[in-house]
Amino acid sequence: MLGARGGWQALRRCSSLPRAVRLRVREALGARQPVDEVKVQGWVRSVRSQKEVLFLHINDGSSLESLQVVADPSLENRDLTFGSAVEVQGKLVKSPHKRQNMELKAESIRVVGPCDTWSFPLKMKERHPLEYVRQFPHLRCRNNTLGSLLRIRSEATAAIHSFFQDNGYVHIHTPIITSNDCEGAGELFHIETSNEARESAEKTHFFNVPAFLTVSGQLHLEVMAGAFTHVFTFGPTFRAENSQSRRHLAEFYMVEAELSFIESLQDVVQVMEDLLKTATSTVLSKCPHDVELFHKYIRPAQKTKDRLEQMLKNKFVTISYNEAVEILKQASQTFTFKPEWGCDLQTEHEKYLVKHCGDVPVFVINYPYDLKPFYMRDNEDGPQHTVAAVDLLVPGIGELCGGSLREERLPFLKSRLQRLGLADAYQWYLDLRKFGSVPHGGFGMGFERYLQYILGVDNIKDVIPFPRFSHSCLL
Amino acid sequence: MLGARGGWQALRRCSSLPRAVRLRVREALGARQPVDEVKVQGWVRSVRSQKEVLFLHINDGSSLESLQVVADPSLENRDLTFGSAVEVQGKLVKSPHKRQNMELKAESIRVVGPCDTWSFPLKMKERHPLEYVRQFPHLRCRNNTLGSLLRIRSEATAAIHSFFQDNGYVHIHTPIITSNDCEGAGELFHIETSNEARESAEKTHFFNVPAFLTVSGQLHLEVMAGAFTHVFTFGPTFRAENSQSRRHLAEFYMVEAELSFIESLQDVVQVMEDLLKTATSTVLSKCPHDVELFHKYIRPAQKTKDRLEQMLKNKFVTISYNEAVEILKQASQTFTFKPEWGCDLQTEHEKYLVKHCGDVPVFVINYPYDLKPFYMRDNEDGPQHTVAAVDLLVPGIGELCGGSLREERLPFLKSRLQRLGLADAYQWYLDLRKFGSVPHGGFGMGFERYLQYILGVDNIKDVIPFPRFSHSCLL
Repeated sequence: MLGARGGWQALRRCSSLPRAVRLRVREALGARQPVDEVKVQGWVRSVRSQKEVLFLHINDGSSLESLQVVADPSLENRDLTFGSAVEVQGKLVKSPHKRQNMELKAESIRVVGPCDTWSFPLKMKERHPLEYVRQFPHLRCRNNTLGSLLRIRSEATAAIHSFFQDNGYVHIHTPIITSNDCEGAGELFHIETSNEARESAEKTHFFNVPAFLTVSGQLHLEVMAGAFTHVFTFGPTFRAENSQSRRHLAEFYMVEAELSFIESLQDVVQVMEDLLKTATSTVLSKCPHDVELFHKYIRPAQKTKDRLEQMLKNKFVTISYNEAVEILKQASQTFTFKPEWGCDLQTEHEKYLVKHCGDVPVFVINYPYDLKPFYMRDNEDGPQHTVAAVDLLVPGIGELCGGSLREERLPFLKSRLQRLGLADAYQWYLDLRKFGSVPHGGFGMGFERYLQYILGVDNIKDVIPFPRFSHSCLL
Repeated sequence: MLGARGGWQALRRCSSLPRAVRLRVREALGARQPVDEVKVQGWVRSVRSQKEVLFLHINDGSSLESLQVVADPSLENRDLTFGSAVEVQGKLVKSPHKRQNMELKAESIRVVGPCDTWSFPLKMKERHPLEYVRQFPHLRCRNNTLGSLLRIRSEATAAIHSFFQDNGYVHIHTPIITSNDCEGAGELFHIETSNEARESAEKTHFFNVPAFLTVSGQLHLEVMAGAFTHVFTFGPTFRAENSQSRRHLAEFYMVEAELSFIESLQDVVQVMEDLLKTATSTVLSKCPHDVELFHKYIRPAQKTKDRLEQMLKNKFVTISYNEAVEILKQASQTFTFKPEWGCDLQTEHEKYLVKHCGDVPVFVINYPYDLKPFYMRDNEDGPQHTVAAVDLLVPGIGELCGGSLREERLPFLKSRLQRLGLADAYQWYLDLRKFGSVPHGGFGMGFERYLQYILGVDNIKDVIPFPRFSHSCLL
């Protein structure tokens, strides 16, 4: 009878009024039949008082849409304002209006918590820009856009977990505090205890060794891929850089997976494509209205929507780094950074390649050996020496995922680590190659970038629950 | 035809031998019918060479049980040892032995990665103690016990996520780096960038304010409960204390939930009980063999198993703090800390209370006002002044969860914060009480403690993926 979601929230009988059924707004909106005695709780999104009737819209965060309440004007009271918290009891009936399925005929309205509208930074029926609400990290979740974002973020998280669980991956909580820096992945945050911070120079470390916030769980996942073959992690990672940019965060979430017993880089590429398609189609089907809000109002002209539909329908394109450089060299466009074999692809290059391939996701594989970290597998293909690495470039974003085959051969890995002077630090990592080492590979995907991609959000600070990195924002 | 788990890992045709179906060990063991051409990959757990037949056991981490491979002795080779990685092709047939369903008649065995058995710290068919394998953080996951632990940990994580999603909670990633210390929850880790660490005294902070690793996501969740009514988080939290104990970790996972529009502490208590029962019964049904390993061998005599069965069947007991103190005062047992109204319950007290109530989980509610943090709701019940707090005590562990109603009334919260000199620091938290504030509450559960409880594991370092806090362990 009620709601789209089976186990969502079972009908609850209220202790005070034995016959009243408590419903979430989403359940009330989705009801198929009238219900005589219901109770709905939430925050007032609009109040419109007419001579003969009082209209309210109530939202409780269970959906973008609010529930319309129709009441006798005698039920109005001074505290019943935008932003106040209310409990409404009455009859849930079919709405005479086309735009909504059900509405609530109020028999009683109780203001549970009034709202100081004068100082409340959100205003009734205003579409506040993202930049404006970002100033109020503790209140912006009561705004439609952020409400939708956080429901989508929650569903996307669940969809990613399900993808891996349904495919037999073991979920591993890789360490947040670590002494390995994943070689050059970025600037690190150091960890100190209060005592250490107060002392100076010659410190004794809490962990005996310098400790950092993780930049990637990859090396730890590789340990686990040597026992479970398929493992994933999905947790916070950190970079002490570029905190003011629209593209970077100091704290962000990363999805990482490792697979053992694979035959080629193509096996890794396939999982990346499957993950992206499965997670995205799940999010689109679970939160259609929330996603629609972004596709309609945040970056208009339905460009993001069309791109996603294309992405879901077609196989992703794969080109080699060599081909990518050739395409860039032959481009009519002039680049700030001249494309040259052996150099990193810049954002402008990535954007061009995506456009060139038809505005679809593009895998670029086999990057120059000297550009990539020690753990990537040597393709032994000189003179243009490459490793079995892959980056996934997507429209509007550039690099979304990165992965590689990992060097599973002890002699190759050892000599590379020795040349880098890292053989001692990574003794445990070398060790793994002595005991039943198998071909394996994996990838990582920045979760916030993924959200930016599917929603068309320009500033990465708008896809996290709390905007960060200023005094007022670091709650 | 195959496997218990529907979407587990679809049958894969291998590119090299077009007819061979690649199966995980779990799928092979669960097959209902023979399969002619299969390929199984994994690590050798045992080799037994007889005159006429060669027996192998192959494990790939998909289950505790290994797959028996039966081969002609001619297929033996020098590298085929304990710990080596192999790929076996052949026929999957019904096993003539009672203890297993299927076995693999090998047609070919390929050693993918040999194992240096001499230096490999794990030995064939030995039941290594947990203390022993803890020395090898990068290899201990290849041990049966840790394999089971990590599969259980993965399923428990999924079960907790599902519980909240099925009940309409929005999943929020609360910040890891924060400037709020959740008042007295414990010693903090400070965050510095490399530059800051090198400088001294007068620092300019990366975030403009001192930044810590989170000790709890509660205050951030409360922000979200003011928009979504039901929210949860499940992520890492940190305490810079007691790292050498068997009961504490510097980095551990916490499940936290907040609910708005609740009527009493009982609403919070009910969710805690439901979560514990639902998650536990899911884990027991998803990983019966893995759980059995712990219940049989780690803390024998089935005590943990019996306790769990009792827990799942019966309603948890609830007593007030006042009653708890009376019970302790009347106890025949002598305590190191004399029980006294106004003092914290010590572990010895908690253990006694659990025993006294019949070795079942016990909720203790309504603690002294002066013992608890500022955010807990005043019961206004002097002279023995209490707050609406709850702790859940469980057999063998003591405190497993803690929660409370939160003080939603601005005047109460403001005067308490002013007395503590914290009103400025928590201005944003006070703000929430001005804009549609409603009765709400929540709780937290230490995930590692939960695993210790259901598995009967004594040392908390044995329920995390990587044992921590010594030079060799901080990978």
